[in-house]
Amino acid sequence: MEPSSGSRRRPGPAVSPVAAVLPAGGSGERLGGATPKQFCAVQGRPLVSYTVRAMERIDWISNIIVVVSPENIEKMKSIIEKYGHKRVMVVQGGITRHRSIFNGLKLFAENEFSEHLLQKPEVVIIHDAVRPFVEEDILLKVVMAAKEHGAAGAIRPLVSTVIASAADGSLDHSLERARYRASEMPQAFLFDIIYEAYQKCTDYDLDYGTECLHLALKYCETNAKLVEGTADLWKVTYKRDLYAAESIIKDNLSQQVCVLTDVREAVARVGLLLHESLKSQIKVETVSTALSKNDSHLQNILSGQCYNFVCINDKKCAIQETQQLVDLLEKSNTPLLYPVVLILVHLDISENIPFSVGMEEIIRIKKFAGEVKKKNILVYGLLIQYK
Amino acid sequence: MEPSSGSRRRPGPAVSPVAAVLPAGGSGERLGGATPKQFCAVQGRPLVSYTVRAMERIDWISNIIVVVSPENIEKMKSIIEKYGHKRVMVVQGGITRHRSIFNGLKLFAENEFSEHLLQKPEVVIIHDAVRPFVEEDILLKVVMAAKEHGAAGAIRPLVSTVIASAADGSLDHSLERARYRASEMPQAFLFDIIYEAYQKCTDYDLDYGTECLHLALKYCETNAKLVEGTADLWKVTYKRDLYAAESIIKDNLSQQVCVLTDVREAVARVGLLLHESLKSQIKVETVSTALSKNDSHLQNILSGQCYNFVCINDKKCAIQETQQLVDLLEKSNTPLLYPVVLILVHLDISENIPFSVGMEEIIRIKKFAGEVKKKNILVYGLLIQYK
Repeated sequence: MEPSSGSRRRPGPAVSPVAAVLPAGGSGERLGGATPKQFCAVQGRPLVSYTVRAMERIDWISNIIVVVSPENIEKMKSIIEKYGHKRVMVVQGGITRHRSIFNGLKLFAENEFSEHLLQKPEVVIIHDAVRPFVEEDILLKVVMAAKEHGAAGAIRPLVSTVIASAADGSLDHSLERARYRASEMPQAFLFDIIYEAYQKCTDYDLDYGTECLHLALKYCETNAKLVEGTADLWKVTYKRDLYAAESIIKDNLSQQVCVLTDVREAVARVGLLLHESLKSQIKVETVSTALSKNDSHLQNILSGQCYNFVCINDKKCAIQETQQLVDLLEKSNTPLLYPVVLILVHLDISENIPFSVGMEEIIRIKKFAGEVKKKNILVYGLLIQYK
Repeated sequence: MEPSSGSRRRPGPAVSPVAAVLPAGGSGERLGGATPKQFCAVQGRPLVSYTVRAMERIDWISNIIVVVSPENIEKMKSIIEKYGHKRVMVVQGGITRHRSIFNGLKLFAENEFSEHLLQKPEVVIIHDAVRPFVEEDILLKVVMAAKEHGAAGAIRPLVSTVIASAADGSLDHSLERARYRASEMPQAFLFDIIYEAYQKCTDYDLDYGTECLHLALKYCETNAKLVEGTADLWKVTYKRDLYAAESIIKDNLSQQVCVLTDVREAVARVGLLLHESLKSQIKVETVSTALSKNDSHLQNILSGQCYNFVCINDKKCAIQETQQLVDLLEKSNTPLLYPVVLILVHLDISENIPFSVGMEEIIRIKKFAGEVKKKNILVYGLLIQYK
């Protein structure tokens, strides 16, 4: 990731606006548990919240529609409130996946929702609520392909050979694995195409089908562009997938760090040097900003649940600066789930200050660290004197 | 599971003998790591060792052939030695999956291996080294079906829709999900059928095919019987699957307990009562045996890495009895990986012994517990006085 100063230029698609519909109405039968998988807690947070976050951190997605079964509407609304999700609306689903997606799309087109009618997007993304690890890169690819071809979807190689069985339960034939692909999510469509497909399709399709690409082909003669996706598009289906999701999330937490500097040149330069030396080992974001300002890139990082920060400054009162970051972190709810590690690097580039003064600063930081530890924020101080 | 006394009757197939071939030559490309997935450590133990264990604990499988690439032969041999695997042979694989399986089968049929030529089995199981959670039940089903139909394989519902792409990378058609299944492992074959299929098949099949059921159909006109498998047949393919495997193994460890009693009737009765009251919450095995004897069922439990034991006795010297179990556990290497919990229940059913004597016994147990804790075995004592 490139270092940025304040607001980062994002490579948004040259289409506008893009909306996303997340069907989240599944009953979680395959998990063998009572809680549908999209609401299962992973590191203390419902799975659907991770997926919503993966969408909302992308600023070219204007609206995120989460479609849930009637009994889960209040639960979903409280998740949105608790985790501070933005640009998200909750819609009641139908009895099948296709009916749920159709309900989500109606929000942009039908009069019955006139109270909430949203601006019709040029392109709509459809993505499962139980695929939390979707990256901006693949979303961008399917959106651009949908703009060109009318429809697009992520695919993956088949893990197992696919076979057809005869009526008596014996092998009829097996498919040549190389010729076929698994159709995954995300998919994207020109809104008018997928909406027309849903309007035209039969009740049988709505009740027994699951594949949106198929509807676009069958009812709008639109052959979707297939986009090779990465392994992280997998769907949380079984209990083992929840285990895997938890481990991946834990791993991710420890593998990203945000380097924060103030805007003074000498300090920002140290931040960039640190960024350069860390970036081969860990995902680094660097922000040079006055913490008192409301920086949108920093807000994005905080809402993305970054748990490791290195704050570099050369001010006499490093603690005031750090206090501001602690306040921001508390507001973001990030440290609720997992301890936040904050390394405070105090550069002393003045010439005439004796070492003992620096030590006093370190002692103040130690006291400060003791206080914020109760908030699940671990502060470490580092004093670097250089000339 | 039923309580048993000493040796348990096993529902082996009425065919004899059955062998298993485990192709373990994969390079682990999809994991994105240098170590092939079958050799990745899960809870400190290579994945392939769990799969071998799943096979060797089934006493009607006479030989287990693990086929590995040339550079991993020594590694595999040392795994077999370290974890005390029995009835296992290591064979050098070919450059593809089919060639490796063929090499494994040759061990039962070809003169070039005359030194090691094994008794030709009636039925051979083929199972992936990276599917460690296979249960006896499905193995038995595919073996019985292979005996009747010549070939059989486990199948699972498709998780994703399968699609065919056109030459230009766009959607050609999607398959109706309900008509197709994922072909999983284990599979089983009459040895003569699968061996004939491998002898007849083309180099193209050997190099580019992966599906044994397909070979049996194409070259021996044998339509395999398809057997619905359970979700635990999944294949460790990606890094996330290693995470999932680790969590499942940890879960399993905490969800089974072995109740051990000596053969005296009053004690065995307490064991059965405990078994009855626990069995709805946890997988229980109960063994009534003199620990000094070499009990094959107990050996099976130990090699199956049970980590929780309740030992019930009414002897004056409970510690001697427990020392024997500790010795057995140490020999099995079980406590190397994970602490073993041993609850020692000392029934005092004599009438005239004062409470203080029981307390002395508890104090001795405490001292004993301190000693064996160094061996990663945690002993807890419980004294029950009843008349």
